[in-house]
Amino acid sequence: MKKVNIQHLVKKLVPIGIVAMTALFAACSGQSSGPGVMEATFEGEGDDLERITQEMVMPPLVPEHEQVATGGPKVVEVTVEIEEKKMEVAPGDSIWALTFNGSVPGPLIVVHQNDFVELTLKNPATNTMMHNIDFHSATGHEGGADISKVNPGEEVTFRFRATRAGVFVYHCAPGGMMTPMHVVSGMNGAIMVLPREGLKDEKGKLVKYDKAFYVMEQDYYLPKNEDGSFKSIATANESMSEMEQSIRTLIPTHIVFNGRRNSLTGKNAMSVNVGDNVLFISGQANRDTRLHLIGGHADLFWPGGKFSNTPYTDFETWAIPGGSAAAALYKFREPGTYTFLNHNLIEAVAFGAVAQVKAEGEWDNALMKEISEAGPIK
Amino acid sequence: MKKVNIQHLVKKLVPIGIVAMTALFAACSGQSSGPGVMEATFEGEGDDLERITQEMVMPPLVPEHEQVATGGPKVVEVTVEIEEKKMEVAPGDSIWALTFNGSVPGPLIVVHQNDFVELTLKNPATNTMMHNIDFHSATGHEGGADISKVNPGEEVTFRFRATRAGVFVYHCAPGGMMTPMHVVSGMNGAIMVLPREGLKDEKGKLVKYDKAFYVMEQDYYLPKNEDGSFKSIATANESMSEMEQSIRTLIPTHIVFNGRRNSLTGKNAMSVNVGDNVLFISGQANRDTRLHLIGGHADLFWPGGKFSNTPYTDFETWAIPGGSAAAALYKFREPGTYTFLNHNLIEAVAFGAVAQVKAEGEWDNALMKEISEAGPIK
Amino acid sequence: MKKVNIQHLVKKLVPIGIVAMTALFAACSGQSSGPGVMEATFEGEGDDLERITQEMVMPPLVPEHEQVATGGPKVVEVTVEIEEKKMEVAPGDSIWALTFNGSVPGPLIVVHQNDFVELTLKNPATNTMMHNIDFHSATGHEGGADISKVNPGEEVTFRFRATRAGVFVYHCAPGGMMTPMHVVSGMNGAIMVLPREGLKDEKGKLVKYDKAFYVMEQDYYLPKNEDGSFKSIATANESMSEMEQSIRTLIPTHIVFNGRRNSLTGKNAMSVNVGDNVLFISGQANRDTRLHLIGGHADLFWPGGKFSNTPYTDFETWAIPGGSAAAALYKFREPGTYTFLNHNLIEAVAFGAVAQVKAEGEWDNALMKEISEAGPIK
Repeated sequence: MKKVNIQHLVKKLVPIGIVAMTALFAACSGQSSGPGVMEATFEGEGDDLERITQEMVMPPLVPEHEQVATGGPKVVEVTVEIEEKKMEVAPGDSIWALTFNGSVPGPLIVVHQNDFVELTLKNPATNTMMHNIDFHSATGHEGGADISKVNPGEEVTFRFRATRAGVFVYHCAPGGMMTPMHVVSGMNGAIMVLPREGLKDEKGKLVKYDKAFYVMEQDYYLPKNEDGSFKSIATANESMSEMEQSIRTLIPTHIVFNGRRNSLTGKNAMSVNVGDNVLFISGQANRDTRLHLIGGHADLFWPGGKFSNTPYTDFETWAIPGGSAAAALYKFREPGTYTFLNHNLIEAVAFGAVAQVKAEGEWDNALMKEISEAGPIK
Repeated sequence: MKKVNIQHLVKKLVPIGIVAMTALFAACSGQSSGPGVMEATFEGEGDDLERITQEMVMPPLVPEHEQVATGGPKVVEVTVEIEEKKMEVAPGDSIWALTFNGSVPGPLIVVHQNDFVELTLKNPATNTMMHNIDFHSATGHEGGADISKVNPGEEVTFRFRATRAGVFVYHCAPGGMMTPMHVVSGMNGAIMVLPREGLKDEKGKLVKYDKAFYVMEQDYYLPKNEDGSFKSIATANESMSEMEQSIRTLIPTHIVFNGRRNSLTGKNAMSVNVGDNVLFISGQANRDTRLHLIGGHADLFWPGGKFSNTPYTDFETWAIPGGSAAAALYKFREPGTYTFLNHNLIEAVAFGAVAQVKAEGEWDNALMKEISEAGPIK
Repeated sequence: MKKVNIQHLVKKLVPIGIVAMTALFAACSGQSSGPGVMEATFEGEGDDLERITQEMVMPPLVPEHEQVATGGPKVVEVTVEIEEKKMEVAPGDSIWALTFNGSVPGPLIVVHQNDFVELTLKNPATNTMMHNIDFHSATGHEGGADISKVNPGEEVTFRFRATRAGVFVYHCAPGGMMTPMHVVSGMNGAIMVLPREGLKDEKGKLVKYDKAFYVMEQDYYLPKNEDGSFKSIATANESMSEMEQSIRTLIPTHIVFNGRRNSLTGKNAMSVNVGDNVLFISGQANRDTRLHLIGGHADLFWPGGKFSNTPYTDFETWAIPGGSAAAALYKFREPGTYTFLNHNLIEAVAFGAVAQVKAEGEWDNALMKEISEAGPIK
């Protein structure tokens, strides 16, 4: 079989018949399968599969989905609209946020392994920059970044097969310095690819979750004046040029969950009940973090956020390298207001990476019991 | 069964009878068990169990303990006294240290899985601040931080069941900026919860250690004058207010083991014999680190420091995310003075994170052999 | 058996006969073996084994080697020559690099488990400083650093047995501040110790690679003038003294792959074919990193880079703590130009940690397919 240079394919100069033959050959020869990757149970490019549309929801919500897939692989249609907008990241501190669907992070996408994600990415004419998307869960074409570039007023559609199970980051990657700057301006999110047969615990037994929350950490680098105050920035483009200096410090000005300080505290706290198995889908698109639920532990924490691996148990703190996502399952055993934070406690408290989970239910003295309250030393 | 809001329980407005019934219900229904967590082999809140007192010792020592538990779960009574004191962290450089039992880190606690830890925390009237304790090994009430707040002159006692096996951080967490500041002023330590049946290697076989050392890394952020020299600080409270600026840099001024530079070098080096299986219990309460024993390797290194997981073998460097503890077992095979350090070599040498282990015994040429010593190039 | 203090051995005051007896005793008693470490299949110090010479090659190339060992353990002779030289790390930015064999990183060494590495380290009289080598794969003598110190004009030879399988860092470690400064001046590299029976996937099945590349990340801390420009440095010694301030910031000026910005991009990109199983041997001798292949994933990623552990599958991003090496296997499934980077995207783009892999072959629409190219929003 003769080799075809990728440039030809990218530029779509190859007749569709040859491409289809190639794909068929790949499917028949089992070429696309390797360690840890499920064999495909079908041939072809997905054109004839059942199609469903996934409605995007705002973080920390996750879209409606089955935990165990019914039926065979599907094409899951997703539409994401890019929005550049000025946004407060802490009281009084604003950034020209670059967003997928208006939120930081962008919406969570949930599919099952071997489903196809068919993404339509829209860049309304009200925006000012070229954007695109790189899915860490996709294979080839820089995760889609090569073929998804859209100027203001344009849209693009492409499809990839979610061959690997796990949680993965996606982000904008327009190239050069624009890549880090778009990402640290908020343009990132996650996709969860569930095993078709659902999640398994460390013994290989099916586990189900009662609730799921989607919490991404975001590092911002707001440009400063010489006196240390934040610069007033008039446009998204000005934000890009001013940010070139501030990102080079490698020290963020803000580190927050879901786009802004206190986005998930007080009346916005996540809400659960004692006895709930809660799946936390987290990630950091750029910078290492370490998440911790005070007074709780991950019953299950998947190495690298990838479900093909045996999950760890009892994890105290969940290390997440920049550019990856993480999944942890915890059954709440006691009521109370839990703090969920980046356990560099400076980054949590001084920079903003703190959330809360409110758990309602019965207190269990068998786990913790007050013996004598604070009083004079005996 | 009617749901009771946690606020009521925290404020102790609920009659004790209801709480006890709740706990009994939980025990009977097996509610508290999940993946990786041992089922309880008893009911109730621990009131009727055998009680033992654990004597705290100074780091790097570990308290006397059984490696394999004899008998059933016990209540292990521990008393910790808080001490605020000015302390040298490097020659000439001092901090107003906030300490558990006068040492940085606080003392190591060792129990077995499903034992209860009954902690009495004393804050003598000679101190100036409110303190408390958050055990990462505990479930609920922010790891105990909610119910252990003690003002100067007060003490408090609470109990938690160590349901998960592993090494875990504990630290002071009074709230707001006081949380990172107390932690980076030295107020942290670790607890080791051993499986009742002892530690297992990667094949599930019992392993015993001949010696154990407890080495925590501490990052300090001493406030500086404009000329770069360290500020002279008169009181612990002044230290808190001055530190607000210095911690925001995220760049420590000192990174040390066991509280101060050279705490474990020269005549204070850890001492072992060739053939000893040595357990290193380490951790970092705030900042990522990566520990390395030069010329050695972890025979066993437990993922996330949690003993329910299969240990890794042959580990060169032990990554520890901020806010977690780690356990590594190494059998010394050659004599010599080993350097144990944070393998960001700048953080080790320029900031202070270096310790030593002196191993006595017979040299084994089968592992390393000098062939020809340094001499003129041939 | 009487204990001999290490100092005596280091100074070689012990008759060779006693040392040999000791080694024999160790081999007979099985003393040197522990969890995860293969038992030796021979006795003695390696003197009588077959000897082979490994020719060093320039990164990203790896020396010729067998994936599955034929025959028993061998002595693998390696000669490394130190070179101090002024070198460009980015257009216009130079460092006085300290190098093993003239390259940053030093050459990759490849052996099989239980082979002996017999290293001759030469420090030509044209250099100005004392150097040595610490192998993280070696046991004892600070990884060889204690017995390999060579002044300009000297050479030294020592041998160690590669008892543990995996990829490991080696680096210069002359002591004190010279250790971090030599390492961040480029004096580090990696050794790969293959299991004799070859690499195994997550199910224990032999996996072979078609190509292997060796890519180390390097952090540099070029001294700056007060105006922020880089200082002009006349000699390697001046570089050492000027660097003392710059390393203390913990913020590098450059973070690059294989010694300089763009060492592996454009016409220097790594070249593969679709269908190739490619082994990436990576590492960072000093600073945490997180590597990512855009549009690809690790089919296999070994925890801590150590082959005795079950590899992870599907890894999105490969966390590497400073002071360790990593191995990841990926079968390329789509053609194109892949970006391989540190996924702190600021460190990648603004600091330089970006490489490329060019994959030739047939596009597979079953994995990713363009549906409609960028055009006006419908």
